[in-house]
Amino acid sequence: MTIHKFTIADAAFQRSPGQDGDIFTGNLLDQRHGGPVTIGFGRYGPDQILEETMTVHDTMVILEGKITVFDAHKSVTAGRGEIIAMQKGDRVTIRSHEAGAVTAYVTYPHWQQPEA
Amino acid sequence: MTIHKFTIADAAFQRSPGQDGDIFTGNLLDQRHGGPVTIGFGRYGPDQILEETMTVHDTMVILEGKITVFDAHKSVTAGRGEIIAMQKGDRVTIRSHEAGAVTAYVTYPHWQQPEA
Repeated sequence: MTIHKFTIADAAFQRSPGQDGDIFTGNLLDQRHGGPVTIGFGRYGPDQILEETMTVHDTMVILEGKITVFDAHKSVTAGRGEIIAMQKGDRVTIRSHEAGAVTAYVTYPHWQQPEA
Repeated sequence: MTIHKFTIADAAFQRSPGQDGDIFTGNLLDQRHGGPVTIGFGRYGPDQILEETMTVHDTMVILEGKITVFDAHKSVTAGRGEIIAMQKGDRVTIRSHEAGAVTAYVTYPHWQQPEA
């Protein structure tokens, strides 16, 4: 392992699992590299909605646009330079706004299963 | 645990350990909260230098300014919206540039020891 620098141009975006909308994730450091966390960028089109039960601890740093995350108890909205942290087991809805959003994320442990 | 939103105004900045320069860290989620990662914001004055051997895996997202990290083998410089990842055991020098920098960081595991 060594020092890594990642820019959004490095990310190979793929459709986020479990939805067919305009939400894409691009892992840059993950289970392939031997470390404990997954690092990547997320890209959301306008007004997208993703419901999921968190299988990992996920920290999102908002780089562009706005993201709202809510569960049965609470709703938070974050914009550029702000952070949203979700915990394993949280059942959340993640929503982008009219301008879409770009995020950086760090998950512990890896959110993708190792490839068979 | 639940959904958290953090802004830089939430951070109680403290001087980063092991240096007396203009480098401050503000943890927002850490060993006090029972989760696996520490989340916070970092603030660097102009042209600050910090040498350290990483005791944790540290992901920095640059929010303002520029940060350069180098070791004996490699140097990377990242600006707004870019990510630098350092691994436990890396012996690095972290340097800010003339405009200083603001970062968001996620470490695994916690970089601070639990308070006695």
